[in-house]
Amino acid sequence: MKGLVYRGARKVAVEQVDDAAIKEPNDAVIRITTTNICGSDLHMYEGRTSVEEGTVLGHENMGIVEEVGSGVAFTKVGDRVSVPFNVACGTCRSCNQGWTSFCERTNPNEGMQGAAYGYANMGPYPGGQAEYLRVPFADFNLLQLPPGSEHENNFTMLSDIFPTGWHGTVLAGMRPGDAVAVYGCGPVGLLAAHSAVIQGAREVFSIDFHDDRLKLAESIGATPIDPRVGDPVAQVLDATSGVGADCGVEAVGWQAHDPSGAEHPELVLDNLVESVKVHGGIGVVGVYVPEDPDGPNDAAKQGRIPFKYGQYFTKGQRMGTGQAPVKRYNAELRDLIIAGRANPGFLVSHELGLDVAPEAYARFDKRENGWTKVLLHPGQS
Amino acid sequence: MKGLVYRGARKVAVEQVDDAAIKEPNDAVIRITTTNICGSDLHMYEGRTSVEEGTVLGHENMGIVEEVGSGVAFTKVGDRVSVPFNVACGTCRSCNQGWTSFCERTNPNEGMQGAAYGYANMGPYPGGQAEYLRVPFADFNLLQLPPGSEHENNFTMLSDIFPTGWHGTVLAGMRPGDAVAVYGCGPVGLLAAHSAVIQGAREVFSIDFHDDRLKLAESIGATPIDPRVGDPVAQVLDATSGVGADCGVEAVGWQAHDPSGAEHPELVLDNLVESVKVHGGIGVVGVYVPEDPDGPNDAAKQGRIPFKYGQYFTKGQRMGTGQAPVKRYNAELRDLIIAGRANPGFLVSHELGLDVAPEAYARFDKRENGWTKVLLHPGQS
Amino acid sequence: MKGLVYRGARKVAVEQVDDAAIKEPNDAVIRITTTNICGSDLHMYEGRTSVEEGTVLGHENMGIVEEVGSGVAFTKVGDRVSVPFNVACGTCRSCNQGWTSFCERTNPNEGMQGAAYGYANMGPYPGGQAEYLRVPFADFNLLQLPPGSEHENNFTMLSDIFPTGWHGTVLAGMRPGDAVAVYGCGPVGLLAAHSAVIQGAREVFSIDFHDDRLKLAESIGATPIDPRVGDPVAQVLDATSGVGADCGVEAVGWQAHDPSGAEHPELVLDNLVESVKVHGGIGVVGVYVPEDPDGPNDAAKQGRIPFKYGQYFTKGQRMGTGQAPVKRYNAELRDLIIAGRANPGFLVSHELGLDVAPEAYARFDKRENGWTKVLLHPGQS
Amino acid sequence: MKGLVYRGARKVAVEQVDDAAIKEPNDAVIRITTTNICGSDLHMYEGRTSVEEGTVLGHENMGIVEEVGSGVAFTKVGDRVSVPFNVACGTCRSCNQGWTSFCERTNPNEGMQGAAYGYANMGPYPGGQAEYLRVPFADFNLLQLPPGSEHENNFTMLSDIFPTGWHGTVLAGMRPGDAVAVYGCGPVGLLAAHSAVIQGAREVFSIDFHDDRLKLAESIGATPIDPRVGDPVAQVLDATSGVGADCGVEAVGWQAHDPSGAEHPELVLDNLVESVKVHGGIGVVGVYVPEDPDGPNDAAKQGRIPFKYGQYFTKGQRMGTGQAPVKRYNAELRDLIIAGRANPGFLVSHELGLDVAPEAYARFDKRENGWTKVLLHPGQS
Repeated sequence: MKGLVYRGARKVAVEQVDDAAIKEPNDAVIRITTTNICGSDLHMYEGRTSVEEGTVLGHENMGIVEEVGSGVAFTKVGDRVSVPFNVACGTCRSCNQGWTSFCERTNPNEGMQGAAYGYANMGPYPGGQAEYLRVPFADFNLLQLPPGSEHENNFTMLSDIFPTGWHGTVLAGMRPGDAVAVYGCGPVGLLAAHSAVIQGAREVFSIDFHDDRLKLAESIGATPIDPRVGDPVAQVLDATSGVGADCGVEAVGWQAHDPSGAEHPELVLDNLVESVKVHGGIGVVGVYVPEDPDGPNDAAKQGRIPFKYGQYFTKGQRMGTGQAPVKRYNAELRDLIIAGRANPGFLVSHELGLDVAPEAYARFDKRENGWTKVLLHPGQS
Repeated sequence: MKGLVYRGARKVAVEQVDDAAIKEPNDAVIRITTTNICGSDLHMYEGRTSVEEGTVLGHENMGIVEEVGSGVAFTKVGDRVSVPFNVACGTCRSCNQGWTSFCERTNPNEGMQGAAYGYANMGPYPGGQAEYLRVPFADFNLLQLPPGSEHENNFTMLSDIFPTGWHGTVLAGMRPGDAVAVYGCGPVGLLAAHSAVIQGAREVFSIDFHDDRLKLAESIGATPIDPRVGDPVAQVLDATSGVGADCGVEAVGWQAHDPSGAEHPELVLDNLVESVKVHGGIGVVGVYVPEDPDGPNDAAKQGRIPFKYGQYFTKGQRMGTGQAPVKRYNAELRDLIIAGRANPGFLVSHELGLDVAPEAYARFDKRENGWTKVLLHPGQS
Repeated sequence: MKGLVYRGARKVAVEQVDDAAIKEPNDAVIRITTTNICGSDLHMYEGRTSVEEGTVLGHENMGIVEEVGSGVAFTKVGDRVSVPFNVACGTCRSCNQGWTSFCERTNPNEGMQGAAYGYANMGPYPGGQAEYLRVPFADFNLLQLPPGSEHENNFTMLSDIFPTGWHGTVLAGMRPGDAVAVYGCGPVGLLAAHSAVIQGAREVFSIDFHDDRLKLAESIGATPIDPRVGDPVAQVLDATSGVGADCGVEAVGWQAHDPSGAEHPELVLDNLVESVKVHGGIGVVGVYVPEDPDGPNDAAKQGRIPFKYGQYFTKGQRMGTGQAPVKRYNAELRDLIIAGRANPGFLVSHELGLDVAPEAYARFDKRENGWTKVLLHPGQS
Repeated sequence: MKGLVYRGARKVAVEQVDDAAIKEPNDAVIRITTTNICGSDLHMYEGRTSVEEGTVLGHENMGIVEEVGSGVAFTKVGDRVSVPFNVACGTCRSCNQGWTSFCERTNPNEGMQGAAYGYANMGPYPGGQAEYLRVPFADFNLLQLPPGSEHENNFTMLSDIFPTGWHGTVLAGMRPGDAVAVYGCGPVGLLAAHSAVIQGAREVFSIDFHDDRLKLAESIGATPIDPRVGDPVAQVLDATSGVGADCGVEAVGWQAHDPSGAEHPELVLDNLVESVKVHGGIGVVGVYVPEDPDGPNDAAKQGRIPFKYGQYFTKGQRMGTGQAPVKRYNAELRDLIIAGRANPGFLVSHELGLDVAPEAYARFDKRENGWTKVLLHPGQS
């Protein structure tokens, strides 16, 4: 079958790869109808990770069940399904407690918990930017979708970024009536904002310095805040009578940079501590890494982020972090989509065949204007 | 009346000070029966804060109501009461939500929320290391105690450190059955351990390198961990089959130092991130400050703590911080004491008159062996 | 001053009554700008309670502060305020925990907790269907509103029914994405539906058999369910693939009756148990009484409701009940109104002067078509 | 193999039955080392249920894995395991949310959710009062135990009654510091009391009128309350200064009777409503049934329980009910046992071979003095 393969920094290619196949009794094989390029794919694409050459990328996958193993009891060939990016066993203690993002069994790397498809350090699972995908523990991992093709662009957000944005609001301890500050209007930040609006935020501040993204934020009911116009902290404080937002979401990650492009790993955390009120919560879904050999200074290389911790403590804030356990949220989010209350597909900018994926990576990586979210449909040419 | 007054770094004196008096209709005046020296008094004593000379210290106070203002409706002269260290109005939004530690009205300093008696930057409220104490909003702030003198050494922990230790376990998200790692066996750390045991921890690891404190930890059912014997993280991981503690409490603060005495502000946070399992919680009640002019490096001077944030994120941990809202816990803790289920007075090492308080400060500041917790009884000579 | 006085079953009159005045240092007196007639006023009006003749009715009050006592520290003359129907002391254990509806001190009746203005058994507090109202513990009880007259019809819902409807969803354990069944489209039921929509319900079923109310439910995004068309349980199950609603709200109360008018006190609880899924939650804000001398049978007279408890247990459901602690919600709801995200005034059908209140009672009591919610403006003629 | 078979009201016999065998790829077969007789087995034994003749009873099972199916990935032959009484699929929405007691797939009966071994209406799963037991979805359902035979009498409580007692405290919303009223000192009630003590109750009231059970309650730190001495409600109120317990647990069920033996299905619920404070919680784990053809009156026959609902509402109480999702608790409870903090085996009164089970049923059914909890060891003669 064909798959998109990592071939070194800023090199990806569509190649013939091993067919996805049943290896264990609880496996299923999915024919991919839609697979998205994720902002975190760019970390690998840019060579900032240890992902191995030859890896098929792609962890935002959905499709149709093509084949099931002998132990699969409920999933049927022909079912339309969303595949959470977390590969989870469904039976360890983390999975039992709803923390599929920290499954204790699926990642064979020493000391690691949590696995994913086509991702650095997340286990030996080829990605889904390909014609087919093998899914372990299929009954547990797969989310059933209504048959047909309706809502494909909404449902494809269920594998990662809609649950991830939603998780940001949960980690932040968001409650109805809150004012919420979301740093970052990439796809995850926009869906964090969308999640906050759905849950009854009284106001959502979306902070970014790309015009197209600020417009999208405004289109879903958020208040755009542009750091090029002035200090975003001051803007949030002004809009909240000096109190600050009730909570905040970090949707940028360790490569945070100012409008000039200079990296400041502590920048967004500093801004969040200042923007959020006393005893407020901060949810961090932007990625920070334990080691960053290319970091701008020694602390950063060791994954140390010297943010304003003394102020954070003095304000009595709290902070939750980490990859989203997609399965905790995806059924409810699917139902909100079906009911017409959620519409995460608003951010799709491009729908392409698999063959042109390399060009899409290049343009998305440059944050070209209007390249917000790219969907690949492997079965289409 | 007599009170203990701050006179500059490592200088305190018992002097005649202005009598505590009713100033506002909702005030009460308390005759102090017991007032404790707190570890955080030492921050001021050592000159590491901006506390003004002439300030009467003391925020851990209890006593008998001597007089009440005209607006006080329920508190009666003669009531035995505990005084939470937080001075709270009882009617602002923070107070309404149970965050008396961030009262919006009682601290007149620009941009500050939360007030305390006899404390740097925490408002114009003289402390209770004196014969009498003025308490604003008396009906709201005072906790009723049974008449008499029973449990004085237990009840005196209700004004600060028992609720603060308990808050540490709450911020950590501790649940029954958890293994809990508590860094620091000072009074707050010991009462965090006591709190965890009461709430059904399956095991509490108490980490410190003072023999007398480790013995006290063991006496209340905790497992002592001594960093002089080996890496405390390795000891916690060994004792938990490599998984780590389910949650952890920071009860040390920014002046964290190794057994040699060298300060490493990030040391305890690093250890907590390593000691606590994935998706585990960390509660921080050890104090960190927004600015520390005497800090060991530039980051520390700005209150920046470059701990292993990338690992913290990768492990999906969460962290709550800040001063305890005493009133949220003190009634339940009082009742646990009365029922014989809590016994925080176990850590009292010295009971002294007010006159000898200066010597007590000096010896407590040196962490002299056996000087765990000092109570002052102003009415006794 | 003038006030609306209860004079026996189905008799109320506007009379000269004692002026509202400061009695205690923490009191304020409010000039009423808007006071609503509540469905629960009808319980008294109909003679189904023990309310004493001569009582001034009215517990849904808002206005302008006219005078404050000597102990009032923060509330100022001229402030525009909403008055929660709960009269609360602000300093007892219930109040401290956010249960102002069960204040331990303000109701002097033996064994009773919780007080209200102008209400049977709820303490000696005249109601606000009058020119002025005395408010005890003013700093604690009063909610500040923006000056002026904007949003008067929305803000007037903050004293009772918007928080009560919202409380219904909280007692039900409602979560974003839920399908919610609300029995009753009176003002409380409609605002429970509004609350559920704001908090991200995927669908709200509003059950009633009055056309005007069903239309209002539909206008705020709920799905109207009419028992005259068919079994409401079957309709809810059909709309949820047989699963049932995720949670439900009871907004009818013990006088539940079928479309023919016959009372069946267990009817709505039975329907909720059947309509809500296994392990789902039910929030009960419709009023049930400990004794009902006019009840349709012996059990009902003793406040016993023989609903399908065995099925309730077998389904593993949970149920929360009781009067709403208004203060827990009203600040957030005010802010949602200001932000334009909540609009509870949609249900106002009539705005009248105080003088015509007796006729308004009579017509509202008959549930005349279109008489959904009546506001009285005492200062207007 | 041999198994204990139901043969009609008050008739059970040890007979040759079909061997337990692997039927589906995810099955395991367990060699039973210990299987308990449960109070709910007596409902069937007494003929109060629709259980079919020929059914092998027994849902409290533990043992050693004898064989695993081809789809079982993690469970190994020779593992020592506890078997939760709930038969759960591990992949439906209820299971995903931790409600294994309401699994949507394992009970084939129309409209039923939740399955169990050897139990009326709970699906086609033979019980474990036999030499071997088939366990579906073994990786999900089985709880790993340390090898060997240590703690057998403690661990055998993990399959049902320890998690069920604990669930009672969770449904009641119990918090550390609470006074807890537990109605019933059968095995579940005693373990609810044990659970409350472990979690930091300040006092536990255990109500029963059997001397041996009251003694056991006292032995674990509870305060025994004997209704033969006086009204249990009055005793609880007296012991709590008239306030009532903070929460309560129902561990009796619909066959509640007074000391004379007369059944009063509403008796315990009435007492709980009266014993528990305003805005307190009640957890119901005693069983109530949707239909009881032998009930003492018409309401009872229909599963209607006319308890004091009006008072329940007026007090603003809440109530959670239903069978326990064992898997939500059993790993933590196992670890508390291993750490020596929980000791549920204290209530074992008899350990017998399988052959004498019929006599044990008869004597346990008569509540003979001292017959608190019977363990059967099928491998022993």
